[in-house]
Amino acid sequence: MRSVYLLLCIPAVCLASVREYSEERAKMVRNEARLSLGGRSELTDKESAVNDCLMRHKFREIDYGFDNPRYYNFSHHFFEYMRDIELSKVYRIIRDMPKGAALHVHDMGILGPDYVVNITYMDHLYVCFQDGDVKFKFSNKSPKDICANKWELMSNARKLSRNITEFDAKIRAYFTMYTDDPGAVYPTIKESWGVFLKYFGRILPLVTYRPVWEQYFYDVLKQFRSDNVMYVEVRSLLPNLYELDGTVFPMLVTAMAYKKAIHRFVRDYPDFYGAKLIFAPSRRIDIPKLEEYLQLARAIKEDMPEEFAGFDLVGQEDAGKPLIEFVPQLLEASKDLDYFFHAGETNWYGTLTDDNLYDAILLGTKRIGHAYALPKHPLLMDEVKKRGIGIEVNVISNAVLSLVRDVRNHPLSIFLARDLPVVLSSDDPGIWEADSLSDDFYVAFVGVANRLEDLRVLKQLALNSLMYSALSGAAKTEAIVKFNAQWDQFINNFDCSRY
Amino acid sequence: MRSVYLLLCIPAVCLASVREYSEERAKMVRNEARLSLGGRSELTDKESAVNDCLMRHKFREIDYGFDNPRYYNFSHHFFEYMRDIELSKVYRIIRDMPKGAALHVHDMGILGPDYVVNITYMDHLYVCFQDGDVKFKFSNKSPKDICANKWELMSNARKLSRNITEFDAKIRAYFTMYTDDPGAVYPTIKESWGVFLKYFGRILPLVTYRPVWEQYFYDVLKQFRSDNVMYVEVRSLLPNLYELDGTVFPMLVTAMAYKKAIHRFVRDYPDFYGAKLIFAPSRRIDIPKLEEYLQLARAIKEDMPEEFAGFDLVGQEDAGKPLIEFVPQLLEASKDLDYFFHAGETNWYGTLTDDNLYDAILLGTKRIGHAYALPKHPLLMDEVKKRGIGIEVNVISNAVLSLVRDVRNHPLSIFLARDLPVVLSSDDPGIWEADSLSDDFYVAFVGVANRLEDLRVLKQLALNSLMYSALSGAAKTEAIVKFNAQWDQFINNFDCSRY
Repeated sequence: MRSVYLLLCIPAVCLASVREYSEERAKMVRNEARLSLGGRSELTDKESAVNDCLMRHKFREIDYGFDNPRYYNFSHHFFEYMRDIELSKVYRIIRDMPKGAALHVHDMGILGPDYVVNITYMDHLYVCFQDGDVKFKFSNKSPKDICANKWELMSNARKLSRNITEFDAKIRAYFTMYTDDPGAVYPTIKESWGVFLKYFGRILPLVTYRPVWEQYFYDVLKQFRSDNVMYVEVRSLLPNLYELDGTVFPMLVTAMAYKKAIHRFVRDYPDFYGAKLIFAPSRRIDIPKLEEYLQLARAIKEDMPEEFAGFDLVGQEDAGKPLIEFVPQLLEASKDLDYFFHAGETNWYGTLTDDNLYDAILLGTKRIGHAYALPKHPLLMDEVKKRGIGIEVNVISNAVLSLVRDVRNHPLSIFLARDLPVVLSSDDPGIWEADSLSDDFYVAFVGVANRLEDLRVLKQLALNSLMYSALSGAAKTEAIVKFNAQWDQFINNFDCSRY
Repeated sequence: MRSVYLLLCIPAVCLASVREYSEERAKMVRNEARLSLGGRSELTDKESAVNDCLMRHKFREIDYGFDNPRYYNFSHHFFEYMRDIELSKVYRIIRDMPKGAALHVHDMGILGPDYVVNITYMDHLYVCFQDGDVKFKFSNKSPKDICANKWELMSNARKLSRNITEFDAKIRAYFTMYTDDPGAVYPTIKESWGVFLKYFGRILPLVTYRPVWEQYFYDVLKQFRSDNVMYVEVRSLLPNLYELDGTVFPMLVTAMAYKKAIHRFVRDYPDFYGAKLIFAPSRRIDIPKLEEYLQLARAIKEDMPEEFAGFDLVGQEDAGKPLIEFVPQLLEASKDLDYFFHAGETNWYGTLTDDNLYDAILLGTKRIGHAYALPKHPLLMDEVKKRGIGIEVNVISNAVLSLVRDVRNHPLSIFLARDLPVVLSSDDPGIWEADSLSDDFYVAFVGVANRLEDLRVLKQLALNSLMYSALSGAAKTEAIVKFNAQWDQFINNFDCSRY
């Protein structure tokens, strides 16, 4: 990789026109940079020093890849380079950097397989192995749930396995999509979504045991906090919680468990700003079910207005119902509820899935989940910017779930170039063993963004995550003040030699 | 795949707002469609009938893929679905459709491996096998060219092989990138470009034998004509031609051979409009060499002003010199020469390769080859449109040469949505055994474009190829008149039941 050239005026051709050319070119480059996210902000002297360190490492990493395309990590599947990320100095800086909020995460996909294995050490857990898969259930007696084989206590099964390390490794493998041959295991979206959905089927009975659920989300917040994230908006299906005796609670109880966990966490860690809930049931439902869910959303909002952000519909977009089927109901409910719709999480163009972008925008969504297909819609790109609709980008998720292989083709680069209201998030980081937000920031910054984009884009992305959050006016201001204090501390304590 | 929904007004929620919503949505969809390439043109009644047939088949193909994502062809490597393309009725219609011009093709990569094998049956051809590779040379005596093994007459080698079918299959394999395991053979751009460049090393001595060269380009034009292409602009390195006795001709002779071949072809096939030459030497050169080439370009232009279109620099962009190194010389020569620069054929963003887009535009290029990276540059996208710079898009090439795997991620979709001055071309179709233009049109139309884009986009792409050609005013008009006649004939003779 060569550094930027100055045009040399060779005497014979040293024309005024070359000077003019250079000036016009510089102006063009400058104007385009100013269009980009963070491109008009200025760094303080101290920030500039941090930036020098950051960019020296960024250039080294990118330029090594440019000169050695065969080894360029980001052109491969995430699983092929995830173990190397920790070696990156840019990553280490990003990990220490305050990143604001995570606004697009699904509750049951956040903590990784090691955490899940730990859950399986709890008392009263039953297991049933069948057809190369596994089922769990907490109960005070052997479960009645259908299973081809017999249910047994997990503690017994583990004991009888003789080799506990091997046994636990097998259990662990059920709770990660990681594989060292992603090309063969996930040739298309069909296979990646297949494994992805199976994960949720397996984890559901583990985490919906009431005592686990209450602790799980507390630990989610802990993990985000330790990754220098200060605020979270979490999407939840609000699955019914249950007790050992088989008691099943209504969904409202699940929402209340969130409220409890959030309050407990903020009490324990007052430097953490908080969290809100987006009720996000499956999009594979009929109209009566939707109406029931909208009614529930209203009830939750009434019960916990502070902790409730709004409503969404989730699941593989291509395989679920398009928003247009629900317009009358969603339009009506938009008087009471804020929307945070998934839309355009697809490679298809001109299909009903792709059309979800129109409906999300027209239904007044506050943010769009993914919006991967947005660059194919120039008019909608302008609308998103004009209406200030946050775009929740999850690069690693889109790579693992087969929308894009080489992340340099991810549309985030286009969003950044046009200063769209982007926020970075991590979707389901536990399922692909990414950390809660830093890996996504890292891949976005080094793998996707313009080589020249610097600390300003990172800071603006962190700020965007608060600006486009569901926090209300005063709370938003307060959160930004808190963020700025964290940021200043990061800048003031920065020591390049530590990395 | 469901068909487009009408919003049903359910009595209880049948509000004026749903009607308003539907109207606003329809307006938005319409406005966006009108922004797209071909989106403002109207079909005649007869064209509408053709379009109905075309779109019925297009919907069937796309919707089958949508419902069966595991088998969706275009998400795989081109080599995994190329054999199936012939089965497509959309493809068959496109093959019969007049497609205007091919404006981005490299002379030595157009005819496929079967054609090359035929060349190896000519007299006086010597061969040398070394290190799993092969070298050829036409000569009236055993060549002196360095080779680890001995040179022998190809006719003898073939005879001695005992199994000629096997022998020819082996020879053929040297002249195609096709493999049934593209994921393993071409994991990154390094490997695909490696094999791609080796092809050129092998074919060079075969086609630069003067009698072959003169016939080769004649046969190129024949192949384009049989694919319903009426005009070609070909890029050439202008390699030195040679005779059996070792005589080597200057590059100007190669250019003159083009002139001869073009005239002979148009005389033999008066319905073909013609061809022009773009002199396109390697970008891995120094300034003195560049100046020599620019001088040669001027000489060619002087000698054959009708057949000479302009100048370009070629080779893997990431591995070659960026345009900025040559600005003083290219700026000076822009007074005499038209440019058709390759630029932005890269996944990198913010590197010198990516920056070639700035310089191509500022140097006044008439068209840009590939411009794959253009969507990351919003300001340059506007410039391209404002200045009417043709964008030469080669989807299959970009897939085979590792820029993009799932072609639904190809930036062409964005160019089409914004009505950029796109022309479709095929780059080096022979090397990946695609046909000369129809396969590229097919993949672009069914794999990349909006599901709803129809005959209007195909017609406009064909018209663009003449509009953005190097033809001068009167000739351009004449070519378009000729195209329109071909088009009317295609429409008038169209019989849906034939497909």
